[in-house]
Amino acid sequence: MIQRLAIIGVGLIGGSLALALRQGGACREVVGCGRNQANLDRALALGVIDRYTQDPAEAVAGADMVLVAVPLGAMRTVFEAMRPGLSPETVITDVGSAKASVVLDAQAAWGELPAGFVPGHPIAGTEQSGVEAAFATLYQGRRVILTPLATSGEEAVARVRSMWEVAGAVVESMSVAHHDEVLAATSHLPHMLAFGLVDSLARMRDNDEIFRYAAGGFRDFTRIASSDPVMWRDICLANRSALLDMMARYKEDLRLIEDAIEAADGEALLEIFTRAKAARDRFCG
Amino acid sequence: MIQRLAIIGVGLIGGSLALALRQGGACREVVGCGRNQANLDRALALGVIDRYTQDPAEAVAGADMVLVAVPLGAMRTVFEAMRPGLSPETVITDVGSAKASVVLDAQAAWGELPAGFVPGHPIAGTEQSGVEAAFATLYQGRRVILTPLATSGEEAVARVRSMWEVAGAVVESMSVAHHDEVLAATSHLPHMLAFGLVDSLARMRDNDEIFRYAAGGFRDFTRIASSDPVMWRDICLANRSALLDMMARYKEDLRLIEDAIEAADGEALLEIFTRAKAARDRFCG
Repeated sequence: MIQRLAIIGVGLIGGSLALALRQGGACREVVGCGRNQANLDRALALGVIDRYTQDPAEAVAGADMVLVAVPLGAMRTVFEAMRPGLSPETVITDVGSAKASVVLDAQAAWGELPAGFVPGHPIAGTEQSGVEAAFATLYQGRRVILTPLATSGEEAVARVRSMWEVAGAVVESMSVAHHDEVLAATSHLPHMLAFGLVDSLARMRDNDEIFRYAAGGFRDFTRIASSDPVMWRDICLANRSALLDMMARYKEDLRLIEDAIEAADGEALLEIFTRAKAARDRFCG
Repeated sequence: MIQRLAIIGVGLIGGSLALALRQGGACREVVGCGRNQANLDRALALGVIDRYTQDPAEAVAGADMVLVAVPLGAMRTVFEAMRPGLSPETVITDVGSAKASVVLDAQAAWGELPAGFVPGHPIAGTEQSGVEAAFATLYQGRRVILTPLATSGEEAVARVRSMWEVAGAVVESMSVAHHDEVLAATSHLPHMLAFGLVDSLARMRDNDEIFRYAAGGFRDFTRIASSDPVMWRDICLANRSALLDMMARYKEDLRLIEDAIEAADGEALLEIFTRAKAARDRFCG
């Protein structure tokens, strides 16, 4: 049982966790914290939080569990602001889409990493954002990756894991570096490709006409280019190294397709497309 | 009114048009033609066609409208096989996803291009294929691009246009070269990027694990990589030049994103992502 959960950044991600834990009877009190008072009032009205403060130190003081659900670019500032309210017993986790940068931010803000700090990342979300979009079943059957550090205490890891499990998630652990590689491949790179494609077409002459002929496949393919630009700027900056590696690897593989088209090598194209289709059907069926 | 429609290649595309025209009372008789007898029997049983033959010349003989709905790689052979059955009055259109190659195939097969020949391309389809997947409303509100040639007769163009309009489509005309550029941008390039991404990930070590963390965005983004490899090999070979141009342009634009990540230039990233999101939201709503 969590006695007091402090949620720093009360949006879709933090709000949905609060709702799930309350419905699961796993949390006695939820304190919200954020910069936007209107948003906090909505969270209160929606029953997502019990009370709020705009001071992170006040929010975390007396909380046994802290969830930091702010954009990657705000992590360090928030960690610094939380510092005066933290106690050695506080368990702290976050939901950032890149993990090495969060750990660096924590080190910069706190000096020594506390045993209660267990970085995490729920692989969940919708195209909506904001606390109005929050719902208790967001994490049902979704994966949450924890990246416990050498400094993370066993007890803290167990409590963070258990919190996500109560919310219905499948919790897995891996290293920070591996997390950042896997997410660069499955999420960050695809977003770059989609943003790049839409921008490329938007910059063509006659782009109005070009988009007019975009059919269903194009809509699906480019849906992720409707994602929040600020969030994605932060992710790119936070996961630079793994993302650049993946982009370089991808360009080499795309070069194989280009070479095959250039050479009119139908066999090579058929081989690549068949392998890709088999992988896609197998994993995403 | 079409007295006799010959459909060469009775699958989703040809079958759906036949159903729409029959329901619209715009076609007296439909003759199917294809290599697979079991498929033709199914088309007969489903009421998509009235009778069939496996000989293209026989199928088109006496037909006032011919729809060639075979893969791009089979166009030339089919055009050649149709030749003995064509008369100067026959109107002929096709549904190929690239148009310059179809015109070259027609020239190679027929020598002179007949006045009745009006290349076309319905921007429609589903992930299913085959005549069982055919349905009468497939073309409702969808765009059909016609690419009339200098040799195409006015009367033939009007009849092909009218046929697609009866099926519910919005018909537009453009040049062969422009069609091939627009489709390279909105369809062929995105397919290359999706096939390339899935293949790139499938070839990584631990690819089982990597795909496990692919969330909803990845599924949408890679859906088109489940498309038919043979069809896409044919499209790549048929639209080589426009596709290679688009791939080169895309790589330059992707390079801008890479450079900005490399330089940790958050402003440049924000600008690109914001422009892309605005274009996507505007055009695909």
